[in-house]
Amino acid sequence: MLTEKLNWRYATKKMDPARAVPQDKVDRILEAVQLAPTSSGLQPFEVTVVTNPEVKARLRAAAFDQAQITDGSHVLVFAAWDNYTAERIDAVVTEMGRQRGGVTEVMTAYYDRLKAMYLPRSAEENYQHAARQAYIAFGMALAAAAFEAVDATPMEGFDPAQVDEILGLRARGLRSVTLLPLGYRAEEGDWLAGLKKVRKPMQDLVTEIA
Amino acid sequence: MLTEKLNWRYATKKMDPARAVPQDKVDRILEAVQLAPTSSGLQPFEVTVVTNPEVKARLRAAAFDQAQITDGSHVLVFAAWDNYTAERIDAVVTEMGRQRGGVTEVMTAYYDRLKAMYLPRSAEENYQHAARQAYIAFGMALAAAAFEAVDATPMEGFDPAQVDEILGLRARGLRSVTLLPLGYRAEEGDWLAGLKKVRKPMQDLVTEIA
Repeated sequence: MLTEKLNWRYATKKMDPARAVPQDKVDRILEAVQLAPTSSGLQPFEVTVVTNPEVKARLRAAAFDQAQITDGSHVLVFAAWDNYTAERIDAVVTEMGRQRGGVTEVMTAYYDRLKAMYLPRSAEENYQHAARQAYIAFGMALAAAAFEAVDATPMEGFDPAQVDEILGLRARGLRSVTLLPLGYRAEEGDWLAGLKKVRKPMQDLVTEIA
Repeated sequence: MLTEKLNWRYATKKMDPARAVPQDKVDRILEAVQLAPTSSGLQPFEVTVVTNPEVKARLRAAAFDQAQITDGSHVLVFAAWDNYTAERIDAVVTEMGRQRGGVTEVMTAYYDRLKAMYLPRSAEENYQHAARQAYIAFGMALAAAAFEAVDATPMEGFDPAQVDEILGLRARGLRSVTLLPLGYRAEEGDWLAGLKKVRKPMQDLVTEIA
């Protein structure tokens, strides 16, 4: 049951540096990211998987020294497109044509309309929209990690400019939006581990119009 | 396997109006929403579940006449807080104290720092941040629906001002960000149903720094 797994997960504060996440589990988490639906299928983000200890140390320094970044075995960095461009949208159409046996007129017309809507907008507005799509995939990665019994700590607390610099993201037209260290909770030393998971009661979260 | 379920799902274009999603499945999808992690645990969004046929018809009219909204049995409307306020943050701290046996000094200090950071920001910046949290929950809902073998169509294509008006969201300090009709794919009439799911190849999505 997914709900059971989501109850098991928590924002692990102390990971065991001696235990690495097996590659097949990381691969399935990345597959969930790949399968996440996005607006018009654009998948306007990329993920950098960092296992290099020196790079992890630099990321940690850019993220308020949060230890999970170096104690976990992998850090996933989600970075959204800094803007929508004709080239980027055309590449999606080309890939779609390749996988579906040709670009159709309907596809071309659809993505032409999309370009007419997105391209006149500011880079900032387009980036914000792309970032939201990255968050869908981020949610999928969190669900997939729980499903694999892998601990994962969703993080927004970092300096995006520094992370972009460390990974060379801006030069690739990307802006970091979230970090996700993967690892295994340590036996001891996690102040959050023993505390009850707190969520809004259903009646404060959900309104029904029947 | 979650990946299998994510491969099964697709943005259903034609739902069977004769089949309703059982309440226990809807409940588990909403539980996944409730369990979604959010920045500092604020859960800065709410979900409206619409089954009322007249309200669904009005939502459909505000969403480019997309038929899944009335053909599906339930429509989930995700709406983010329009701003962070001291009252909203205090309510989270109070609930946390209630569920964890008292508000501690550490908790108070943490959320005081958060207020010092969020409250001076513009409503727009805070809303954008809240919206991203809603997207994590939206991703969880999509994963949970797939897990329940329930079809779900993620939608951003609607007029948020109209949806806010139909559901009275602005008066409650909320702004609609996504719609999610739930239902079951129709046997016939879905142009997308037979097409291959297209996703970016892994090498275009993921960069490794080892």
